[in-house]
Amino acid sequence: MAKQDKQFVKEITPQSEDFSRWYIDVLQKAEWMDYAPVRGCIVIRPDAYEIWERCQRELDREFKRTGHRNAYFPLFIPESFFEKEKEHVEGFNPELPWVTEAGGDILEERLAVRPTSETMFGHMYAQWIQSYRDLPLLLNQWANVVRWEKRTLPFLRTSEFLWQEGHTAHATEEEAREETMRMLGIYADFVESFLAIPVIRGQKTPSEKFAGAVETYTIESLMKDGRALQTATSHYLGQNFAKSFEIQYLDKDNQLKYVYTTSWGMSTRILGAIVMVHGDDRGLVLPPKLSPTQVVIVPIGPAKAREAVVAKARELFDALKRADIRVHLDDRDDVSPGWKFNEYELRGVPIRLELGPRDLEASQAVLARRDTGEKITVPLDAVIERVQALLSDIQRDLFEAAKRRLEENSHVAETLDQLVEIIQTKRGFVLAGWCGDDACERAVKDACTATSRCIPFDPPARPSTCVTCGKPAKHAVWFAKSY
Amino acid sequence: MAKQDKQFVKEITPQSEDFSRWYIDVLQKAEWMDYAPVRGCIVIRPDAYEIWERCQRELDREFKRTGHRNAYFPLFIPESFFEKEKEHVEGFNPELPWVTEAGGDILEERLAVRPTSETMFGHMYAQWIQSYRDLPLLLNQWANVVRWEKRTLPFLRTSEFLWQEGHTAHATEEEAREETMRMLGIYADFVESFLAIPVIRGQKTPSEKFAGAVETYTIESLMKDGRALQTATSHYLGQNFAKSFEIQYLDKDNQLKYVYTTSWGMSTRILGAIVMVHGDDRGLVLPPKLSPTQVVIVPIGPAKAREAVVAKARELFDALKRADIRVHLDDRDDVSPGWKFNEYELRGVPIRLELGPRDLEASQAVLARRDTGEKITVPLDAVIERVQALLSDIQRDLFEAAKRRLEENSHVAETLDQLVEIIQTKRGFVLAGWCGDDACERAVKDACTATSRCIPFDPPARPSTCVTCGKPAKHAVWFAKSY
Repeated sequence: MAKQDKQFVKEITPQSEDFSRWYIDVLQKAEWMDYAPVRGCIVIRPDAYEIWERCQRELDREFKRTGHRNAYFPLFIPESFFEKEKEHVEGFNPELPWVTEAGGDILEERLAVRPTSETMFGHMYAQWIQSYRDLPLLLNQWANVVRWEKRTLPFLRTSEFLWQEGHTAHATEEEAREETMRMLGIYADFVESFLAIPVIRGQKTPSEKFAGAVETYTIESLMKDGRALQTATSHYLGQNFAKSFEIQYLDKDNQLKYVYTTSWGMSTRILGAIVMVHGDDRGLVLPPKLSPTQVVIVPIGPAKAREAVVAKARELFDALKRADIRVHLDDRDDVSPGWKFNEYELRGVPIRLELGPRDLEASQAVLARRDTGEKITVPLDAVIERVQALLSDIQRDLFEAAKRRLEENSHVAETLDQLVEIIQTKRGFVLAGWCGDDACERAVKDACTATSRCIPFDPPARPSTCVTCGKPAKHAVWFAKSY
Repeated sequence: MAKQDKQFVKEITPQSEDFSRWYIDVLQKAEWMDYAPVRGCIVIRPDAYEIWERCQRELDREFKRTGHRNAYFPLFIPESFFEKEKEHVEGFNPELPWVTEAGGDILEERLAVRPTSETMFGHMYAQWIQSYRDLPLLLNQWANVVRWEKRTLPFLRTSEFLWQEGHTAHATEEEAREETMRMLGIYADFVESFLAIPVIRGQKTPSEKFAGAVETYTIESLMKDGRALQTATSHYLGQNFAKSFEIQYLDKDNQLKYVYTTSWGMSTRILGAIVMVHGDDRGLVLPPKLSPTQVVIVPIGPAKAREAVVAKARELFDALKRADIRVHLDDRDDVSPGWKFNEYELRGVPIRLELGPRDLEASQAVLARRDTGEKITVPLDAVIERVQALLSDIQRDLFEAAKRRLEENSHVAETLDQLVEIIQTKRGFVLAGWCGDDACERAVKDACTATSRCIPFDPPARPSTCVTCGKPAKHAVWFAKSY
């Protein structure tokens, strides 16, 4: 922190001027990340990493509650493994980094650095699964993966990122489908209740599904610039990988059968979503449930009153800490309160507690909300309960504000012209009818670069005709520009 | 579990016959790991991974308590980075895997898959550290690393492994040295109190130190076959990396100075240590503090009494669970109690609780200790407190037994002949005097393949002459065959 330029807040590009620039400015100045000396790679710095740790803890608990266990599979995948599933190799081949030499020798078979691990899990599952008694097999791993993409953006699309990938095998299609939906539900609930980001749940169209999946389910969210971001996916893989990797089991009826598999993942891209959904021109705005610091105490007022104020601030610090609130006391005297206000606003701390000599006299403190800017004067003996209530208000209000924004930026289009006009003037999500033909979906993208985000489970309208060709619509589809 | 061969226990090679074979047998049959289809790589299966998770939780708490924060740095390191520190590149170059192609293109500069991250941290620290106010900088990362070694052994030496690596930068040599010793102490306390493995603390000789370090400190433990295993290291790096990567800060006196850095790491090799220190011919023996399951309840007796026994077993299960004991009830009726006994012994569960109809009548249960085989009959209403006490007894007794073994296998040698004879007949640790000359150290290795493990902080004796040349000894050194 010590290196912060005293004028740093003014250096953040306003969102309205250049949203991407704003995003990078905030990430760097709030010390969430820095560019690494490898193309498309970043360093995830402690404040951001701590949020990822909190996300891991919550998700991991849910995974374990639903019967999953963690394991660790190798980083390197032999080239031949990718060849086994045709769609999978076509989807991932263009993005793979290859290890060709190791320990001073040229390798006989090139090793891919994993972009995802269906093939490696498939290979091992074939050895571990023999009988119906071995099913279901429910594993997850927390790992790094690499996808060498052309365009990168910190957190949202980096050459290397952190994620979890669940891989499960089941005796029946029904069970595997239930698992796919269960995990999508866990992701959706987590994103809404911890990240305070509303999601649209639905199914990917065939052209947007995971390479090798039968069906891909997704949760999609709206960023403040009107673009969509896919925050997690859950794939029903059917018997595709089971057949490619010969994952068979002897059933109770003594028949040898292929298993049904699923996979599902959530990555560090959600850190980018937090920034793009809640942040503003002053910097980050963090949901209290995930913020490393929930309350920062800043003593104010003239130097002569300082000692008494800081003493009381310490008392409050101790009391808040005892109440399990993540609190930080900034009693440095070589930077001004105003500088501190800016700094903690940049860093997105949900509540600033100001305490000065006049507050002391009146036995009160001022709570300033990061999200709304509102200032609330509270009696000193009510600080803890008011802070607790305010933290949960802020968590709820952030979600509600994001939800209103999602609703206000969700539109319906009957024709391609309408769709294009909305995308070009307002962005956001546009619901439109679709006949099911790939060409009609592609026509939307060609017209305005918006892609189909999902076929929602619960569409707000059911357009009767295809937005492109006018034939009867099979599905309602959400289109949007996306990250 | 369902696939266990009913005769599996007999298939474990006895330790006395072939310790390495015993080790692999246990790891595979207890489902701790499986070989992956990539040279020298394994899959860490859930029971082993869960122990790693517990280790992570404990260590991470200690790291945070001592002011460190987690971050994440890139997997790939540009080739030029290694060239910057001469010793470092010489030490690691022979083991590096190289990414030479990515996304369909040949890379301009090859990327190493990290074997350790001093260079990457060094590069970033140079950008983040400007002033004395930025110090100390105390970061850690949990990550995978790769070292393409010729001889591999599951957990102890694999091409890829998981670890944590702490990297810190300090204003003064004194602070950096304190940090180095503090982290060594955290490792030593952790290994002794959680893994129940006694350690010898000391300093590596120059020939055994980390490539690029000024000094390397180590904790060494004795495996049951008489070999030593290095379980963690902590490096004082002086200004070596600071000078290679230009990590300078402006001090209070307005002078530009190089920082002093440290690094320290512990890896999944400790999982192998647990197996090799406590395991026996029946399989794993797990320290209660780390065991995924602490107590397994096995109902016994004839089918007609089953219902009442299982009902009481469920009650006990619930009561133990409420008492925060990690308990598993195996009430399957398609496998025999004897089969279950073998299975949970193989898996190293510290306590087996047996309950049969006669126990029910007598309001008692039988607790069987995995470590000693001892059986203890306890009244049903005292089960919880007895289990709690027994778990902590087992934890302590495992440590005491390992400590006795370490003491019994620690010897002193005055001459090279003596040293060689001890190593060849008994193995274990041999303390000997050393003049400080590399050639004399090498002579020991040439004579019997034992290497210097460390110069202990607290040697049990102080040999006056060098074991090789007979000149005055500068240090007492522990020699041993090692993994």
